[in-house]
Parts: sequence; structure tokens; C-alpha cells
Amino acid sequence: MPRAQPESLTRVIDDLSQRLGKRCSVNRSILEQHSHGEDYAAHDPPDVVVWPVSTEEVSHIAALCNAQRVPLVAFGAGSSVEGQVNASQGGVCIDLSRMDQVLEMHAEDGDCVVQPGVTREGLNAYLRDTGMYFPIDPGANATLGGMISTRASGTTTIFYGTMAQNVVALEVVLADGRVIRCGTRARKSSAGYDLVRVFAGAEGTLGIITEATVRIYGRPETVGAGVCPFPDFHKAVDAVTEVIQTGLKPTRIEFVDEVMMGACNRYMHLSLPEKPTLFVEFSGSRAGVEEQFRLADEIMQGHGAAPLEWSTDEARRTELWKARHNAYHAGRALRPGWESISTDICVPISALSDSVAQARRDIQAAGLTAAMVGHVGDGNYHVMFLFDPQDDGQRRTIEGINSAMIDRALAVQGTCTGEHGIGLGRRDKLRKQFGDDTLSLMCSLKRAWDPNGILNPGKIFPQTT
Amino acid sequence: MPRAQPESLTRVIDDLSQRLGKRCSVNRSILEQHSHGEDYAAHDPPDVVVWPVSTEEVSHIAALCNAQRVPLVAFGAGSSVEGQVNASQGGVCIDLSRMDQVLEMHAEDGDCVVQPGVTREGLNAYLRDTGMYFPIDPGANATLGGMISTRASGTTTIFYGTMAQNVVALEVVLADGRVIRCGTRARKSSAGYDLVRVFAGAEGTLGIITEATVRIYGRPETVGAGVCPFPDFHKAVDAVTEVIQTGLKPTRIEFVDEVMMGACNRYMHLSLPEKPTLFVEFSGSRAGVEEQFRLADEIMQGHGAAPLEWSTDEARRTELWKARHNAYHAGRALRPGWESISTDICVPISALSDSVAQARRDIQAAGLTAAMVGHVGDGNYHVMFLFDPQDDGQRRTIEGINSAMIDRALAVQGTCTGEHGIGLGRRDKLRKQFGDDTLSLMCSLKRAWDPNGILNPGKIFPQTT
Repeated sequence: MPRAQPESLTRVIDDLSQRLGKRCSVNRSILEQHSHGEDYAAHDPPDVVVWPVSTEEVSHIAALCNAQRVPLVAFGAGSSVEGQVNASQGGVCIDLSRMDQVLEMHAEDGDCVVQPGVTREGLNAYLRDTGMYFPIDPGANATLGGMISTRASGTTTIFYGTMAQNVVALEVVLADGRVIRCGTRARKSSAGYDLVRVFAGAEGTLGIITEATVRIYGRPETVGAGVCPFPDFHKAVDAVTEVIQTGLKPTRIEFVDEVMMGACNRYMHLSLPEKPTLFVEFSGSRAGVEEQFRLADEIMQGHGAAPLEWSTDEARRTELWKARHNAYHAGRALRPGWESISTDICVPISALSDSVAQARRDIQAAGLTAAMVGHVGDGNYHVMFLFDPQDDGQRRTIEGINSAMIDRALAVQGTCTGEHGIGLGRRDKLRKQFGDDTLSLMCSLKRAWDPNGILNPGKIFPQTT
Repeated sequence: MPRAQPESLTRVIDDLSQRLGKRCSVNRSILEQHSHGEDYAAHDPPDVVVWPVSTEEVSHIAALCNAQRVPLVAFGAGSSVEGQVNASQGGVCIDLSRMDQVLEMHAEDGDCVVQPGVTREGLNAYLRDTGMYFPIDPGANATLGGMISTRASGTTTIFYGTMAQNVVALEVVLADGRVIRCGTRARKSSAGYDLVRVFAGAEGTLGIITEATVRIYGRPETVGAGVCPFPDFHKAVDAVTEVIQTGLKPTRIEFVDEVMMGACNRYMHLSLPEKPTLFVEFSGSRAGVEEQFRLADEIMQGHGAAPLEWSTDEARRTELWKARHNAYHAGRALRPGWESISTDICVPISALSDSVAQARRDIQAAGLTAAMVGHVGDGNYHVMFLFDPQDDGQRRTIEGINSAMIDRALAVQGTCTGEHGIGLGRRDKLRKQFGDDTLSLMCSLKRAWDPNGILNPGKIFPQTT
């Protein structure tokens, strides 16, 4: 849809400021704060920001925007990285951060009902004394509404699955303001179309999530974290494959490349081996954790690794994983003042070694600065490319390499995005990945549910669709 | 949609018999064979049955039916139980049983590409010497296309998840004959709407699956099966809850009630205790299996159970689980010549004890014959009601009890169907479960993708929608 008509926008802003008072703002710095997420270069401010506190308010806002044909963009923590929250056609930004209540907790059923603005750290703070926790960890302290909307995952996916597998029911406000519920609290259901999985990953283009029921888990008795450098990347991947095939169940198994390890050494004044490194976590009973580390160590040394250093002590665990936890900022610090672009390739595990090796060849041939981390058990890795924002040639080179990486991933039936989503940044890749017919099927779903195209317009679909 | 116009039907049958030769039939006994699945009373024969052998043929058939407005009903093994394969508006029955090839197997990635007519036993026979297997087990030897389409699950869901969680990519023929692909072979993806999960559970109303990529798993080193009678149902459920909360990971944990145990004794000339009984399976390393049985036994005896009898020997395992494996036929044999109706309630685990207790009270008060089995770790159980087909009053009483069971399940955010689907038999329950607005959202998706309503017409949506 195009931008709203000025008179429509005026009507909407008048209504909302009257209804919401101070929870409606056209202040320029507020608009700027809501013009972008993280790591996406463009800033697109909305015309107005509102902070609803109830489903009824969200419903009113949607119905109003729909009647006036004004774009409506949902905003959580602003931690998405592909421009998902940019108001590229202006309109109303609906900031859900004040809908941040945990509504119900059912320990016996392993689920929890939350408002969309609850963050994952907020939920875990709430659960602290209950023996339960919410394990999905994309790094950023995202809101659960946002995590559901981008099908976020992160370091624990290998054990707990993605956000899509951990959301069981939703309340959603549709484009026309209707409020619907889908899903159940039962462990499974064959009743009708699985609408929960349609909204999960729709990036706010099909509805606004106003309540979510998510899975929570018993906090494990013991958590052990370890770290282990390898002579090269291939050996690290082979070790991960064997760890998994042997039936060990790491709760996290992360890869950091030698460039990123060097960045961490400089950023945090450490002296870790600047080698491809695996970070491993096992959870469960003390005996189970010890046994799994023993077996993992054996497997890893069989692939040429140094002995696995590990601990179940919390302070020591944090120390051992320090490099992994701070990799993002360490990587950015390699070139102060430069921008970064992260790839999000995910391929079948059998294709991972080649995928990374070819990426590295391209990076070296072009003489670029790039560091790598990977959720290697999922076949998912991020290359953080750094570039001088003044240097258009450098940016184009990176885009070319990224594009070639995606082409190769698609050739082995992988995906252009494992966990970051499409947003504005990968719209053309969506067409490349699925082709015109599949894309038109997605578009027809969008048109059926949001006929005026007010919900997060411009997102996920290529502009010529 | 209504039935096809006679002249349209003639055109379709002429075209298909010319193109497919003997793989197109209007033979009356063939039509009758394709008029129903299992356990659904009505028989609705199609006007013609075809057996395509390629995606191109399926595409041609769909395009032809769409142009002529002729209903198109997909048929696999005919093992669905809610009338999903009944041709309630006549038309073309597309029998996919000759598309039964396993196309690719990727052991390292844990996936397998199959045609829709491959059965789960067929797939496991194919995988026999590879060290891999396909664990999803709904009981019947269903086709994978059918299992995906009803979001089937069964006894192993507690460990491996449902069919929806074990299908990663699809090729689908749409109503107008277009062939689309969705999903990837990567472990996760955030690229666009998750169309795989839309087709999974759509019961053939949105497209015809012509190829599926499903997860396969390494065959466990050791499998142990055990059995254990309890003094009452509540104690058995409490034991299951504790087994799960303790972190034990049964691959199956099944409940059979005392009525069904009695039926098994009579049907197979056994002398098992006629008590509520749990059937448990653990898999993995030998030491792990032994340790888990030891802990499970301790927990169960703590809830008043007899000592857990178990074995890892294959013949002995089959013996121990004989009652569970034959429960369906044993139950039917309680009243030879009578019909049966199965409920498929699934509730949050915290609500399971009450749900079953209230069902039993209703059954006893009405003096009905009914036996029970349950995938108790999932909160899913089936009451098999037996009734005299001549006795309308008896059938109405059963329908009333079933309806009350569903109402109570919905009140605790459970579902009217855990794994059997909606078909013809539960259409009104779909509305009850989700309400008009959610139902209309499902309908608008159906209309967007199948505007002429040719795909499995009459299914899942209440007739007044």
C-alpha cells in the first residue's frame, strides 16, 4: 500500500491522542527511536507512536487504521535486524512494550500465558523462584511477541526447538480489529488449520499478537559449560555431527571462528587460542552432565581438538563462555565506526562444511573483514561483514558474496534465513527461495486476511509482487 | 460446493479414462471401496477413481476438475476415522497409493524424501538396513501423505512429536493444478509464511501433497518395553506426571483401562490383571534404558503400582505389549456386530485425571459399553463407545456424552481432536472450539487458495459456514 492520505492520518492521530493521551506521541525523537531495529541501515520513522495497554486498545487502533487506510507497524524491543520494524510507508507504530504482564503460569502443564511485550529476560525473572524457565535465547532481550513474529531461535534450538515450536496458542488482533484466538493448551491438536504456525513468522503482516501461550521447562538440576579449540573448521563440524549422531543431547553447541576469537581477545583483553572454537553446554542430572562431557571430550579429541575445558560452577561457566556471549560487540569493535551486515544461512548439516568453506574463500578473495559465529548443530551460521559506510563498492562486494552464499544454500535445499526473517532486507531472496507460484500463494493469504494491506506494509514480499 | 453437473463429470471421466487407461475406474465395487475410511458410518462413493503415478498427472487431474467444477478427494490408505476420504459430494477420488516411492534418503541430515503413497511400514522396510527409522506410529499402516494431512501422531508423540513436527518440506498440487514447493531441508527457517504447517492438518482441503520430506532418526541401540497395573486411574496419571517431571524420557507411555484389559483377556485368551495399566517404552543405550526402567519402577511403585515388568528382548517385548497392540480389535470384539465411535479428547496434562473421571461417570450412569486407551503423556485419550446400529437412542446418548466430554475439554483449553482430525464427523466441534471469527479466518484461507471449492468439499467446515 502507499503512504496514508494526510487527512486520514490526521483523523487517526486526533482519535488516538484523544483516546490514549500521553500514550500517543508525535515527538520527533520518539519517532526516530521507532524508525529502525538493530543492524539495518535505513531509518524510516512512523508518523505517530502509540503504547496500548490492552487488547481492546489494539483492536480499536487496528479498526481505525483499517478504516482510514493507514499503515500499522508493530514494535517490540526493536531488536530485529532486517528492518522488520521500520515504518517504510509511515503510519502508526504500535509499541507493545507496555503490555508486559505474565498472565498465567501452569507449571504442571509446562506453559505460561504472556502479553506480547514481555521480554525473555522478564519472563525468566518472573519464573525465577518457580523451578521453571523459558530457554529460547536469540541473544537480544527481545519481546516474546517479536520472537514469535520472526520465528526466532538462537543458541538452544538444538535442544528446545525454535520459537515456532514453543508457542502453543495466540490471541491476535486482525487488520479489521477483530480479536481471534487460535491453538490450545493441549500437547497436540488436529482441529482445523494450524493458525498459530501461520502467525508465527509472519512478521506482523497478518495480525498483531496480543497474548501468547508459550512452553516453559523445568530448570535442570545441573548446567555445565565447556569450550574447546580445533585445528580447523571442518574438524569442528565433524565433531559436532558425531556428538549428535552418538545420541548426546547438548543444550547448546556453538561455533566461533578464529577471526572472531581474535576480536574477543582484543575486545575483552583475553588470551584465548585464536582457533576455530566450539562452545558446548549440557544440562540435566549431575551424573548425566559429567558423562556427556566425558563422551563429548573423547569425540572431540578424536577430531584433533584440545581437551574440553568445562565446569558446572556458574561463575566459571560465564567465564568460559565469555567470548561467545560478547562475540557480537567484539566483532563490531574490529572496525570502529563501520557498519555491519550479518548473513543468516542455514543448510542441511551435511552441507555445512562446504557452505562455510566457500564463504571463507569468497571473503578472503575479496580481502574483506568478516567474523563468524554459528549455531552449528542446526546448520545455521552468521558471517558478520564489516564495511565502511562511505564505501559503496565495499558494500556491493559484500552484497554479491552474501547473494552467492544464499544461492549455494538454496541449491542444497537450505534457507536464506535461519532465524532473522525477511523484513525489508531479504525480500528478493524470498522469491529466489520459493519461486513465483509459492510466493503468490503467500500473497493470496496476505490479501485474504489484510485486504487493505495496512499491516506492516512493504515487508517480506518483493516490491514487484 | 454442490455436486458436479452431469455433463462436466462426463467430460472429466472421458478425459481421465483416455489419459490413464486402466488407472481410471468407474467399477461399482471400486467406487464402494473408496467411499469411506475406517470407523465412520456413512459411505459416500465417488463417481470415478484414478491412480496417478506422477506429480504431472495429479496436476492435470486438479486443473481438469477445477475447470469443470468437479470435487476432488485425495485417498491414501483409507485409514482415517472421521470421514475424511468420503466423497460426500461425489466427484473424482484420487488414490495416491501408486505414488509409493522413497525418492531420497539423507542419513546424515536425518531426512527422507517420499511420495505421498509410501506407508509408514513401507518406509521402515525401506530403511531397515540403514540404521535409521521413521518412528511416528498412529497404529494403522497409514500413508505418509494421509498422516501429514490429518496431523497424525500416536504412541511415540511424547518423544518424537507429531507428524506436523516431522515434516520439513512439501511439494503440493494446488486446486488449479499449479505445483508449488514449500519448506526446506534446513533444521529451521524464518523465510516467509510457514506453508508446510498450513498443509499439514488441512485434510486435503487446500492442496494435494505429491512429495514430502520427513524426519528420520537413528535406530536406538536398545529398546525396552514394560507393563504395570495400577490400583486406579488417578494413580497411573500421577505416576506418568512424575515420570515426566523427573526428566525421564519414555519413547511411549500408554494407558489401557480395566474394561479394555478385560476385553484383551477375552479376545486373546490372556490372564492379565483387569486393572488400569500403563505400558512404557524406553530407548537408547542399554545402560540408559536400564537406569530409566529402574527409576520409573520406583516412581510407579510409589504410586501404588505392582512392580514394573519389562524386557529388552524383542519377542518378550511384543508379548508384554500384546494387549496394547490389539486393544482396538479386542474392544470391537466386546460386542460383535455393533458399531464403534471413538472420542479423541486431548487436554492439558493437569486436567487429564478429571477429564477421564467425568467421562467414566457419564458412561456408567448411561449404562453404556465403552473401553478406553490413552496416549497419557500427551493428555490424549480415546473412549471406544460400542453401540447397536439399530438403536438410535443409544447412539444419541453416546453423542450427548461425547459432546459433553468435548465441552469440558474446551473449557480447560484442550481440543476436540488430538490426532484424528475434523473430517465430516467433528465439523460442528470446530466451530465450538474456535468460535465464528477464527472459523471465518480459516474459511477465508480456504477460499483464497481454492476459490471454486473443489478440494475435499464438505470437509472440516460446518455446513452453515
